Amino acid sequence: MRVFSFYQRVSRAFHDYPSFSKLIVIFTVSSGGLVAYSDSKSHHGANNVNLSQTDCKKKRVVVLGTGWAGTSFLKNLDSSVYDVQVVSQRNYFAFTPLLPSVTCGTVEARSVVEPVRKIIRKKKEEIRFWEAECTKIDAAKKEVHCRSVQKVGSDGKEEFIVEYDYLVIAVGACANTFNTPGVEENCHFLKEVEDAQRIRKSVIDSFERASLPNLSEEERKKVLHFVVVGGGPTGVEFAAELHDFVNEDLVKLYPKVKDLVKITLLEAGDHILNMFDKRITAFAEEKFGRDGIDVKTGSMVVKVTDSVISTKEMRIGEISSVPYGMVVWSTGIGTRPVIREFMNQISQTNRRVLATDEWLRVEGCKSTYALGDCATINQRKVMEDIAVIFDKADKDKSGTLTVQEVQDVIKDIQIRYPQVELYLKNRRMKNIVDLLKDSKADDEKKSLELDIEELKSALSQVDSQMKNLPATAQVAAQQGAYLARCFNRMEECEENPEGPIRFRGEGRHRFHPFRYKHLGQFAPLGGEQTAAQLPGDWVSIGHSSQWLWYSVYASKQVSWRTRFLVISDWTRRFIFGRDSSRI
Amino acid sequence: MRVFSFYQRVSRAFHDYPSFSKLIVIFTVSSGGLVAYSDSKSHHGANNVNLSQTDCKKKRVVVLGTGWAGTSFLKNLDSSVYDVQVVSQRNYFAFTPLLPSVTCGTVEARSVVEPVRKIIRKKKEEIRFWEAECTKIDAAKKEVHCRSVQKVGSDGKEEFIVEYDYLVIAVGACANTFNTPGVEENCHFLKEVEDAQRIRKSVIDSFERASLPNLSEEERKKVLHFVVVGGGPTGVEFAAELHDFVNEDLVKLYPKVKDLVKITLLEAGDHILNMFDKRITAFAEEKFGRDGIDVKTGSMVVKVTDSVISTKEMRIGEISSVPYGMVVWSTGIGTRPVIREFMNQISQTNRRVLATDEWLRVEGCKSTYALGDCATINQRKVMEDIAVIFDKADKDKSGTLTVQEVQDVIKDIQIRYPQVELYLKNRRMKNIVDLLKDSKADDEKKSLELDIEELKSALSQVDSQMKNLPATAQVAAQQGAYLARCFNRMEECEENPEGPIRFRGEGRHRFHPFRYKHLGQFAPLGGEQTAAQLPGDWVSIGHSSQWLWYSVYASKQVSWRTRFLVISDWTRRFIFGRDSSRI
Repeated sequence: MRVFSFYQRVSRAFHDYPSFSKLIVIFTVSSGGLVAYSDSKSHHGANNVNLSQTDCKKKRVVVLGTGWAGTSFLKNLDSSVYDVQVVSQRNYFAFTPLLPSVTCGTVEARSVVEPVRKIIRKKKEEIRFWEAECTKIDAAKKEVHCRSVQKVGSDGKEEFIVEYDYLVIAVGACANTFNTPGVEENCHFLKEVEDAQRIRKSVIDSFERASLPNLSEEERKKVLHFVVVGGGPTGVEFAAELHDFVNEDLVKLYPKVKDLVKITLLEAGDHILNMFDKRITAFAEEKFGRDGIDVKTGSMVVKVTDSVISTKEMRIGEISSVPYGMVVWSTGIGTRPVIREFMNQISQTNRRVLATDEWLRVEGCKSTYALGDCATINQRKVMEDIAVIFDKADKDKSGTLTVQEVQDVIKDIQIRYPQVELYLKNRRMKNIVDLLKDSKADDEKKSLELDIEELKSALSQVDSQMKNLPATAQVAAQQGAYLARCFNRMEECEENPEGPIRFRGEGRHRFHPFRYKHLGQFAPLGGEQTAAQLPGDWVSIGHSSQWLWYSVYASKQVSWRTRFLVISDWTRRFIFGRDSSRI
Repeated sequence: MRVFSFYQRVSRAFHDYPSFSKLIVIFTVSSGGLVAYSDSKSHHGANNVNLSQTDCKKKRVVVLGTGWAGTSFLKNLDSSVYDVQVVSQRNYFAFTPLLPSVTCGTVEARSVVEPVRKIIRKKKEEIRFWEAECTKIDAAKKEVHCRSVQKVGSDGKEEFIVEYDYLVIAVGACANTFNTPGVEENCHFLKEVEDAQRIRKSVIDSFERASLPNLSEEERKKVLHFVVVGGGPTGVEFAAELHDFVNEDLVKLYPKVKDLVKITLLEAGDHILNMFDKRITAFAEEKFGRDGIDVKTGSMVVKVTDSVISTKEMRIGEISSVPYGMVVWSTGIGTRPVIREFMNQISQTNRRVLATDEWLRVEGCKSTYALGDCATINQRKVMEDIAVIFDKADKDKSGTLTVQEVQDVIKDIQIRYPQVELYLKNRRMKNIVDLLKDSKADDEKKSLELDIEELKSALSQVDSQMKNLPATAQVAAQQGAYLARCFNRMEECEENPEGPIRFRGEGRHRFHPFRYKHLGQFAPLGGEQTAAQLPGDWVSIGHSSQWLWYSVYASKQVSWRTRFLVISDWTRRFIFGRDSSRI
């Protein structure tokens, strides 16, 4: 109580000075830490519960990975129902959207990570965690081969096998080099916390090296030429962060070399941030131009040596080479070897990435689920199923569908095939009946019975609305939460299925299929300006979006601890700038 | 002003709740950051001053190292008088007394470092910094060979030469393995920030590895056996930190292996902390015993393999071996190779460490100064100089010294030979006349003339007071500040020397010799308890000393930035504990 009244008194002091409203936000959010602390203390006893008596009855769930998808699954799972084991190379969850900030020390690496064990010990029942790499999934034997990430003396690395009843694959993706020669050896990636730490050290190294006395002007320029490959949100944010780091902090410490710094952003497409609204793309390109960041669109990297990067101009086909000091490669995601091997095992050989159905079940492999960046949902096309849909709807087997017959299955169709709803929304139609009417010739509108050809023609354009979900933290987190909810209600829904009708079988699906709810996306552009694209194509660019960005990122932190740390990092940066020590 | 009144208001809130007095300290200290910030901003213009016109006239000072000695020298030097260059492998200053805290994440690595460039850009005139290793000192040519610390592509590392008029050597020391086999390969040291980071990762690794499913109980115990070699302040503090980390944080996250953890502290001498008061040693040994830290005194490490550490019991000579998971070696300091090579060059071959005189000038090498852990002061003995002292004092060449004659040189003797003052203080004598009287037989006390034999016998015990200064941050920092003051007044004191009479030459010494002022020493013992030994043999042990420790270490930070960070780290630790993510 004393803590509380003290806190009240301090906030009163803040309230009397409304100009410090921004600080209030920060202070309020960070004060919550005390509450979170006492909260987190309350579950200790649970750790020591002995599982062995009940273990045998429970189904064994093995989760691979502790990124957004895996962690979100674990947080939402009712661990009392299953015997859960987690296998991950990293014993922490990393808040990856802040990795570009870590590269330049705006936020510290340790502020964006939270130990997995801290997350899982708050669960009702013990979840076991193994810090190991999954080297092989054996779907036939239902076991996972694991190898410890630590090198142990001369014995090599520990190996062991974990058996499962259900497998949840959430190992994420690796960087995609598109097999460009020299990328693996000479470029930095920006996928892991360690990558960000290496980039930070490398930036400082470049400045120290460029300051040495025995270099020519030419060499100094080369060392201070930073190249970012990929104009997606990560590449753009890194370029912006680097520009800010150089211009806000490093110029003061390295005044002699500040004019030699050059940042180049290479993008193979026509524009940077091409998944965003055009207004955002235009603003970003224009801002980068003003900032002196050299944005080269339509420029594809074809080769990287240890000192030169070669690009091909997409329009004229010309190849040119420039010396560089450091390259950060951020062009998209590739498939991890263990997933590639697993795909061969389950005959997904020709696919680019692991395919699941709308319930996140891996196609062609029972009791196995995949989510996050390592998988994509292979959405079912309406046109593929049109015959069975018609058949199911045509209850009286008359060969035509009446309005009533259609309306009986409308809801199930819309749930099973989300593209239908999207299509209707885009065409500003109320429901599927409008669509069916629309497909009829004017003189036939009175007759509201459809044969299968008419149904086909009505729905022919619907599948064009299908698109893959982006490989973002938001999608992964929502998938994790969705899958956990399914697992929690597995038995319940087995008896009382809540999903849509099975058009290709009997009865109903156990669960609603996964539906992604897009909450918007940010693109920080440096100089305390951020572009935000929110649902409903609402676009906001500038300082206000930056504050929105701060608030959202602070609130989305996985624990009060990281929230406290991230906010205190931002505060520290405002007051003292970023650190340039080479550690 | 708004900031100020806001701050006033907040502190009033604090004052109304006196129970938060501890927080007041923290808050007050960290608020100062704002002031420090505006202060640090005021010197920007100075960076761009072009040295080239005046360079040629100024003497070139080259400083090797940016540890306590080097940084303290740079902070206190009047850079307008010299053309200063700094060569160091680390572009930052590290607050080394907090390294044991960094090993367990009580304080973050980045909170204890401050970029050297940030320190030197506040100076009046530009100081140039090269991030490089000094590979050779060429005293004959007055040049220093340097090599960049960065590996550069396939070209290897950049090399260059820096010329000097004055050289200030402050490169510190390396760990001393006493040539024990296997130490270099298998042990962690605790000298650099990187060492502390590696230890932290290694501790977490041990817990993760011990938690893997396929290990036997025996193997788990081995992995969780932490051995600390060396019972000095660093070793003791690390053992205490580790014990706290395990018992306050890790037990909650690794409940299954917590009972297998063992910490062993090995010390070859009879007691740990043997440079401290006996009360502190006894308290520490007793506390460690209670905590379950296995303190083995009289136990010398003779060999370390990758899994077993062998020790020799000093009393019985028996050698025993125990399996271990991790060893931290902290037994004292050794000489760096570059210093060893330099010592051969200047014929200091047989010495253990670089010798200087009381003015920190390297013996046998002009214009070269050495300070901090890489050097010791070779103190002049009174008995070596007794003849010239007598001769100088005996102005009338009568062969005896009168009281007046002695009193004329007393001050100079006491300044030149600090051991005299120490001796008098220990014998509770007012001044040297008492000492001389004391040496006379009772019946001679009336006659106050001394011959040389009587002087010898009076001063014969004085040199026993001489002892080498400890290799601590405190000594190094005082030496740096002292040397900078000498450099600042070099010309002035050339004309008006301020030092004592030269007994072995004509005139006076330019400067007072260096005098170390001991301000006390801390030994943190874990569990929020610290032992403090303050001047005047004042000993304090317990929680109050821990708060004194916090205050002193916060106030001694090199910048407001690190002060803010260290204090916020402590706060974070109090609220959320230490992080156990493996990064």
